[in-house]
Amino acid sequence: MHSLHAFFFPRSVAIIGASTDPERIGGRPLRFMVECGFAGALYPVNVNGVAEIQGHTAYRSVLEIPGEVDHAIVAVPVAGAEQAVRDCAQKGVKAVQVFTAGFAETSSEGAALQRRITDIARAAGMRLVGPNALGLLNPGIGLFATFSTALNGLRPRAGSIGLATQSGAFGSAAYGMATLRGLGLSRVIATGNEADVDVAECIEYLAQDDDTSVICAAIESCRDGARLRAALLQAADAGKPVVIMKIGHTEIGAAAAATHTGSLAGNDAVYDTVFAECGALRAHSIEEMLDIAYVCVTAKQLPANAEIGIVTGSGGVGILMADNATELGLTLPPLPEATAQALRDILPFAVPANPYDTTAQVTAVPDGVTRVMSAMAAGSSCATHFAYLAHVGLSPARFAGTERALCALRAQHPDRLFVLVMLSEAGVNSRLEAAGIPVFQDPTRAVRAVAGAARLRALREQLHRLPAQLPPASEPLPPVSNESEAKAVLATAGIPVLPEHLCSSAAAAVRAGELVGFPVVAKIVSPDIAHKTEIGGVILDIADAGALAAAFATLIARASAAAPQARIDGVLVAPMLKGGLETIIGIHSDPVFGPMALFGLGGTAVELFKDVAFASVPLTPERARSLVHQVRASRLLRGWRGGPMYDEAALVDALCRVSALAAAHAGELEGIDINPFVVRTQGAYCLDALISLRPAR
Amino acid sequence: MHSLHAFFFPRSVAIIGASTDPERIGGRPLRFMVECGFAGALYPVNVNGVAEIQGHTAYRSVLEIPGEVDHAIVAVPVAGAEQAVRDCAQKGVKAVQVFTAGFAETSSEGAALQRRITDIARAAGMRLVGPNALGLLNPGIGLFATFSTALNGLRPRAGSIGLATQSGAFGSAAYGMATLRGLGLSRVIATGNEADVDVAECIEYLAQDDDTSVICAAIESCRDGARLRAALLQAADAGKPVVIMKIGHTEIGAAAAATHTGSLAGNDAVYDTVFAECGALRAHSIEEMLDIAYVCVTAKQLPANAEIGIVTGSGGVGILMADNATELGLTLPPLPEATAQALRDILPFAVPANPYDTTAQVTAVPDGVTRVMSAMAAGSSCATHFAYLAHVGLSPARFAGTERALCALRAQHPDRLFVLVMLSEAGVNSRLEAAGIPVFQDPTRAVRAVAGAARLRALREQLHRLPAQLPPASEPLPPVSNESEAKAVLATAGIPVLPEHLCSSAAAAVRAGELVGFPVVAKIVSPDIAHKTEIGGVILDIADAGALAAAFATLIARASAAAPQARIDGVLVAPMLKGGLETIIGIHSDPVFGPMALFGLGGTAVELFKDVAFASVPLTPERARSLVHQVRASRLLRGWRGGPMYDEAALVDALCRVSALAAAHAGELEGIDINPFVVRTQGAYCLDALISLRPAR
Repeated sequence: MHSLHAFFFPRSVAIIGASTDPERIGGRPLRFMVECGFAGALYPVNVNGVAEIQGHTAYRSVLEIPGEVDHAIVAVPVAGAEQAVRDCAQKGVKAVQVFTAGFAETSSEGAALQRRITDIARAAGMRLVGPNALGLLNPGIGLFATFSTALNGLRPRAGSIGLATQSGAFGSAAYGMATLRGLGLSRVIATGNEADVDVAECIEYLAQDDDTSVICAAIESCRDGARLRAALLQAADAGKPVVIMKIGHTEIGAAAAATHTGSLAGNDAVYDTVFAECGALRAHSIEEMLDIAYVCVTAKQLPANAEIGIVTGSGGVGILMADNATELGLTLPPLPEATAQALRDILPFAVPANPYDTTAQVTAVPDGVTRVMSAMAAGSSCATHFAYLAHVGLSPARFAGTERALCALRAQHPDRLFVLVMLSEAGVNSRLEAAGIPVFQDPTRAVRAVAGAARLRALREQLHRLPAQLPPASEPLPPVSNESEAKAVLATAGIPVLPEHLCSSAAAAVRAGELVGFPVVAKIVSPDIAHKTEIGGVILDIADAGALAAAFATLIARASAAAPQARIDGVLVAPMLKGGLETIIGIHSDPVFGPMALFGLGGTAVELFKDVAFASVPLTPERARSLVHQVRASRLLRGWRGGPMYDEAALVDALCRVSALAAAHAGELEGIDINPFVVRTQGAYCLDALISLRPAR
Repeated sequence: MHSLHAFFFPRSVAIIGASTDPERIGGRPLRFMVECGFAGALYPVNVNGVAEIQGHTAYRSVLEIPGEVDHAIVAVPVAGAEQAVRDCAQKGVKAVQVFTAGFAETSSEGAALQRRITDIARAAGMRLVGPNALGLLNPGIGLFATFSTALNGLRPRAGSIGLATQSGAFGSAAYGMATLRGLGLSRVIATGNEADVDVAECIEYLAQDDDTSVICAAIESCRDGARLRAALLQAADAGKPVVIMKIGHTEIGAAAAATHTGSLAGNDAVYDTVFAECGALRAHSIEEMLDIAYVCVTAKQLPANAEIGIVTGSGGVGILMADNATELGLTLPPLPEATAQALRDILPFAVPANPYDTTAQVTAVPDGVTRVMSAMAAGSSCATHFAYLAHVGLSPARFAGTERALCALRAQHPDRLFVLVMLSEAGVNSRLEAAGIPVFQDPTRAVRAVAGAARLRALREQLHRLPAQLPPASEPLPPVSNESEAKAVLATAGIPVLPEHLCSSAAAAVRAGELVGFPVVAKIVSPDIAHKTEIGGVILDIADAGALAAAFATLIARASAAAPQARIDGVLVAPMLKGGLETIIGIHSDPVFGPMALFGLGGTAVELFKDVAFASVPLTPERARSLVHQVRASRLLRGWRGGPMYDEAALVDALCRVSALAAAHAGELEGIDINPFVVRTQGAYCLDALISLRPAR
């Protein structure tokens, strides 16, 4: 039994700080649970010693309650909160919710108080939700253990969507909207300050909860990345879709990041990556989250592929849906000839195609719509079939026959999704939904929701499970203060670098030039000059010894002029590599989710279009390849417009090696930039590198 | 009086092909108008000679009707349609709708029949909607002149949104959805095959119609681009927002386009451009179209700027809205100190900011929400103020005071938009809407709709009015069969090209090389080789006479090997230009909208990210600059990451000259590609050009 179970299935609930005024914060939970018929024991607690509160015997302290208390709500002023939690611990309460505010969200004293109540709870083996929490619901048993005024206007009904949010108000908005559109909820919980229970753990609980089949969640921040990953993967493994919102695209700190990779990562791209790797779909509005959840709970499955068939009574709407679908990555396969013939037999005047415009003729053919849908489904591999039926659902009597036939069709094809788009009455929708058929008003929203469900399915098939234990490094990284040292580290890890020499005199440079072969490149090397090109610190295509000696002098002079205080380690002499595609390989150590690999193709695509992709490390070759292919510009690697095929295998190998290096040294690394990493038609080379280590602790 | 007026305000309506069965196509219009209390005369016409149809005296022919007929509906089988139209013309009917199908949409005979009925109508000065039309509505007078079964389930109410669509079914979907959400409609019309009246003319009519304040439209194709432009501009000048959908992103033919520009233009980008230039906002779903129209009709104005203020009782929802807003180009200016102080005075514990999280404290302060909104509005320049009020609208009695105060606040600030986001009952919404305050459930949809309205305002301030008469060319373009001739045409138009020589022998090439100065570029010139680089037909950076002579031979050999049949005009010798940014300037002659200019920055940005922008020609320098700035990669021109400032003035001048050339020769040109057009820190040059002329007629 999961330890959060006690919150949702208590045999008894104590409300500490209960109020006789059913409108006050301490009065509402009691009122809601009484009104909604919660069958467990309800124990109002109030220090003022009233005998009865809202018809229930009241107690001065939770310790005075005669029976056991499974779930206690603390709704007292902040000054009394610690004592209340202590009393709960002493009483042996299993689960305590702290509604009281004034903790870590307000001041350092509040944070200290929060740590104290957390310690009390942990020591007693008591789980704690909050503080600063709005409450939780289990509508199936009338447990409305919340002070949200949302319940003044609506009553969530039982269903199979579980909802976990940090913000209570955000949660209220979501379950309010869900309730108004008729969606039922298994559990609702707001975690508030997350002193103990966080959204990740709620997802883990919902993944195990039999009443929940789809999980919706919203987070503002995450403190334990590993737990969130594990919870999302657990939900995926349980076959429960997770639709999650991440609120706040905070880019604070991105500008000041130590590496270019770090600044590209920001906050948002990393969350996107982790969600996708763990099979969760990110939604960008509450409505979108609910639309996708609606398709999942109604159809009780995810589409097995991204192929769709569309039957429509309106050519225009069919084309609109096809446009929307194509933009979202769904495909409309052409009809097989046998299907086309079957359709011609049913509607001789309509042209068989996908989308299939039945024309108005369909209304003249008995069971026209369902016969057509049946023919489309029988003959195709499409996992999802849409029917646009205009406004027939507004005339339930006229629609009754079609409705029954559609429900029967759905039963015949339990492996397919059938989705209707039409204007209709609530009763019509309920019957169709009960048969497993989602109904939408807006064609575009229907397509978007199915695209979301199809993406959930695709994500589930390519989960990224990190090794439980990252492969340990045999020894820590050496200090890395310049390009030369960074390349040495990379070379040791098997990442190809060119033969290069760090030279401290013009004569040494010339010797190096002769060793590696002209033409060469010369670059200033200094731990204090991160952006060499901006000070003219790189000279390309040096043809001979004379030019190289001159270049050495020029570089030293430029460095001294641009940064008089800079320590100069010397001049790096390397062969001049021509041709190939410039790419970027990076590592960003995310404080929450750990090291992430970045890949992009050089220049404007990265800078202007943020055409980069991230993946958690370490990478398998397969996942490295998928990382490369997520980048739009990666088409340039594969014979774009008659161009050559570049050595993708060498690139993938380098990505795997960099990611393994990052995994092995996760605790030491701030980030890595390999920019450019040049991929040629044979082989690939790191031409410049920056490794940033964490300050030693 | 606009000639479409007669369709919507007829004193009498004849239904030719009227049926005694109120469920049949010929029976429904009569039934709907009777049920909805249309006050004009209704004349059923049926050749079968029934005396009475649905309680109205029936006639054998429209010619037998005693009184005048303003509006006639033709709902007879296709065989009788021509005679019916002819009778209408003879009767002096002002406006005829043809519901009958089987015309241009089915066969060439149908197309011929369509031309005949159109000619009959035109000769008689009778306007014709259809054929294959679904009907039109004027809900204010109960004119439901349609056979749409949508009216079985709902009755559109009068309001001020005008809706014009080609597809009747698409129109039914849109007004059905509008009606279900309580939006009123001034006029609805479906134009069907558009033999006479098209959507553009309907927009023109609605722009003049006093009952209409916002126009929604959907088109699948447009045959008269000039008329559509004129209609959209007329609506913009009348201060009526137009929200328009273009259905079908058909890219057919794009692959086979004569120019690169043509293939980038496709169909969709040109529509996007024309809509924006004429002040219309393109929507991509019916719901989005209605959301924007809802804000416009309710607020009765467009936001004067893109600045928004957000007041929220939930930090999370506030951040979500701020995220959404920023992505859509809205801005959240920080609060002026005076406003911050005013807010601190009202809610001491809340931190003044935008978005402003009132915290739960606001509920404890009398009139808290409205006082806060008032302070925000008084102290800021934001045209739009959002308030997220959770679910208060579900408790109308508790909300009544705030509701009144908000209505009063809105009256005090008639120049601002106030938009509420909350769950609420329909009655609450109606009262707020009547006071000019739109209400949304979903925070994201509220922000999107306001962003749409703000964009409409921005578009209106930069309308692109083409000259009534394009500047005529003094003489037609000469034949242009290769790069050399194309550059000559461009040079004559004042577009900078390098000094270049077309050489027919190695000796001539060497002389040319000495003339223009080494290093040089040599390129094969042939009308039959469009993609020179793909056959190795360009040799760069030729250092001296010997190398140039060899290059000449190599080029001729490569061309002969790759395309033995190709006519070879010679080898072009030009100075080798180094440095500068490669851009693309193009002209695409759109069959509907005429010549369009294209701009992009070379290479992957254009190919992979379609980072290009279009504008109708001719261009003013201001509009050319705006065209450049619409391209994301154009930041590279303006000192990107410490790089140089390129000569944007030279680029703008070239765009204007190319666009003037295209305007002057609109009838002759298929397209122009100037690729690359290299922009340097001083000056800019066309390095390669292709001009494609229309086949002479």
